[in-house]
This record gives sequence, C-alpha cells and structure tokens, in this order.
Amino acid sequence: MRIDIITVLPEILESPLSCSILKRAQDKGLVEICIHNLRDYSPDEKHKRVDDYPFGGTAGMVMQCEPVDRAITALKEQRRYDEVIYTSPDGENFTQPVANQLSLSENLIILCGHYKGIDYRIREHLITREISIGDYVLTGGELAAAVMADAIVRLIPGAIGDEQSALSDSFQDNLLAPPVYTRPANYKGWEVPDILLSGHEAKIREWELQQSIERTKRLRPDLR
Amino acid sequence: MRIDIITVLPEILESPLSCSILKRAQDKGLVEICIHNLRDYSPDEKHKRVDDYPFGGTAGMVMQCEPVDRAITALKEQRRYDEVIYTSPDGENFTQPVANQLSLSENLIILCGHYKGIDYRIREHLITREISIGDYVLTGGELAAAVMADAIVRLIPGAIGDEQSALSDSFQDNLLAPPVYTRPANYKGWEVPDILLSGHEAKIREWELQQSIERTKRLRPDLR
Repeated sequence: MRIDIITVLPEILESPLSCSILKRAQDKGLVEICIHNLRDYSPDEKHKRVDDYPFGGTAGMVMQCEPVDRAITALKEQRRYDEVIYTSPDGENFTQPVANQLSLSENLIILCGHYKGIDYRIREHLITREISIGDYVLTGGELAAAVMADAIVRLIPGAIGDEQSALSDSFQDNLLAPPVYTRPANYKGWEVPDILLSGHEAKIREWELQQSIERTKRLRPDLR
Repeated sequence: MRIDIITVLPEILESPLSCSILKRAQDKGLVEICIHNLRDYSPDEKHKRVDDYPFGGTAGMVMQCEPVDRAITALKEQRRYDEVIYTSPDGENFTQPVANQLSLSENLIILCGHYKGIDYRIREHLITREISIGDYVLTGGELAAAVMADAIVRLIPGAIGDEQSALSDSFQDNLLAPPVYTRPANYKGWEVPDILLSGHEAKIREWELQQSIERTKRLRPDLR
C-alpha cells in the first residue's frame, strides 16, 4: 500500500509518521507514506505561493487550483489511485468501516486542506472522496491525514504485533470494548472484578461480552 | 491556558505541537502545552515499565494504575484542573461545542491511552471526562490529544490571525461553510460562480448563506 499526502505544512507530519506503528509498518515494507510539499508544485517560482484571497470578500485565504492540479496530475502519471481524498470537516464521516475499506486500497492520495479551504473547483474536478475525522474544525488537514493514516495502516495484516488485539477493538462488531484491568488486583483499595481472577475462561468471555453490550447500550445506543 | 499531556510516546507529539498555530499560540503566551512521559512516573526504576498483561487473558497490554495516578497527582498538587480528560474511542464525541467549552478552561490534563487501553480503575477514580475524536480506533491517544489541542487552541482569542475566519468556519452555526473560490476566475474552463465576481456585497452574503443551508441539508441533515 502507498499513501501520498499533499500538504503546505509537511513538517507537522514528521513525528507522527516516524514513530510507533506507522514507522514499523513502513520499516516492514507494509506501507510507503510519501509527503509532498504543495509549494513544490507552485507555478510561482519565486515565492512558491499556493493561496490567494477568496472571491466575494470573505475572510481567510484559499488554496489555488493550479498547484493542487499539478501535484495530483504528477502523481497520477506514475500510478493508479483508488481514491483522491480531501480532508474536510464537511466530508463523509471517517469511521472504522471506512478505515477497514480504505486499508484494502493499493494507492491513496490525501490532500490536506489549510487556510480557509481549497478552491471548490478542485473538489468538483479532482477529488474522489471528501472525508471528515469529526465535527470540529482544525487548523489544517495535516492532523486529519495523520489520524486516517494511523487508523488505516494498523489494519494492514502484520502492522500491529498482536492481531487478536485489533479484532477485539471498539467498533469492530459495533460494540464498545469491555473494561480492562491489570496488576495489581488491589490498588489503594480499588479492586478488579472477581470474575477476572476466577480462571473460568468461558465465564470471563461471557462477562466481557455482557460488559461490551451494556456499555454500548449506555454510552453509544446509536451503534446498535 | 495550560494543557498537560501525559503519554508513553511523547515523541509523536513533537512536530504537531511545534508547528503552525500551536507553536504561535505558545510563542504568544496564549497557551502552555507540557508533555509528560508516563515512564518518568513508573515505580519500576530500572525498566520504567508502565503496562502489564490484562487480567482474564485477553490480548494486548494495559496501562497500570500507579504510574498514571502518580503523574496526575503530581500535576494536581501544582494547580487546579478543570478536567482530567482520557482520550478513548468509547468516550463522549469531541465536537465544535465541546472544543468551544474546553477553550474556556484554565488548566486541562489529557491522558493518552495506548496499547489495549488503561486499567479501568483509572477511568473510574481519576478521569473526569472521556472524549473520543471519532468512531475509529487509533494506535494511541497521542494523535487524539494533538487534534483536541489544535481545535481548542485555535479558538483562544488571538491564536489565529483572522478571527473572522474562525467565526465563519463550519459548525459554528450548525451550518457547513459555503464553497470558496480564488483566482483565476477561469482555470482550464472551470469557472467561478458569476455572483462572486459581481461586487454586490449583500447578494454575495445571501448566496453564501443559501449555499451553506443547501450544503448542510444535503450533506449533514443531522446538524439542523
């Protein structure tokens, strides 16, 4: 799998992409993540400008068509992309099923919005999918791209050490995960539920499922 | 405002917190963001261990009570915190109203989950608010903490240059933002809507509002 991220602030992505699972998955050759500085595609050779004032006099700056068009076109000349994603708060919600689906892709482009947004014509003509990581506004799409890359890459077989662990995560069965506990069994008088210390494997699995169902009903009734 | 982030992977947060708006807001003295390595609070002086196997035999590793208790207690001895937040996919949804509310806090702790999660007793006894940035699973809570910090800090007056720009963002009125366009008015035959070139300020604002309402109805009927 290959993920190309186009951004005006490549430096934000440095540490998230070079640590932990994302680093290990790249080291193992499971995914190649390439960051492209949009300014390298600016037609303005001197100032590398990629934004301009919006038509109609609203506040903020808008990313221009040409640099984005050039960047995406250059990538598309090299390989076929499953999706050209734009990170935008008004896009389709990023969810675990979307992450599952995207983790089966061969090549993805993620275009990070910045400033007030991107020229709407880019969205109409070049973007195949607009995705929002949540109902809030960020300074730019870089953190959204990092979040998507992390959620997607950890689903690639081999990316996380313990695959069972991903299968029992929240949302994989539309259930929240059950509570987890570790040693000591008694910490300052706070105790672990007896059942978990009982050694009855089947009863423990049943208790966990009940806890998952009960927690989902109480906290996220919309998931069922 | 002060945000303390407790994590086992402080290095993930390096670049997101030292770029763009988060850097400028810290440089201006609007916010102080302090990263704490949970391992510094481990009772295990030799290996700095902070996790252990879960009771009941499920897969994955669980963050232990004592290091987290020590870290939070040490911080609370120094100042009063508005919230002790745990980033978890089964928490309350992070939304723009939640970001608005948290941006009025004086001091926040954000505890980043990692591995399979944290010992549930921490959640019962030490955490005041559990927040999820979306219905998907990440490798850890570090990117969630970065996302929350970004969304919150940009709302502090003075953090972003053009305050009008934040007020016209998506979600501030439960409306998606209208499309934006910038020069050139014609790019490869793709044209900007005539109204935006008309110079009729009042008509443009009316068009933008109509577009916002229409886009919200079509894309996010749940917001209205």
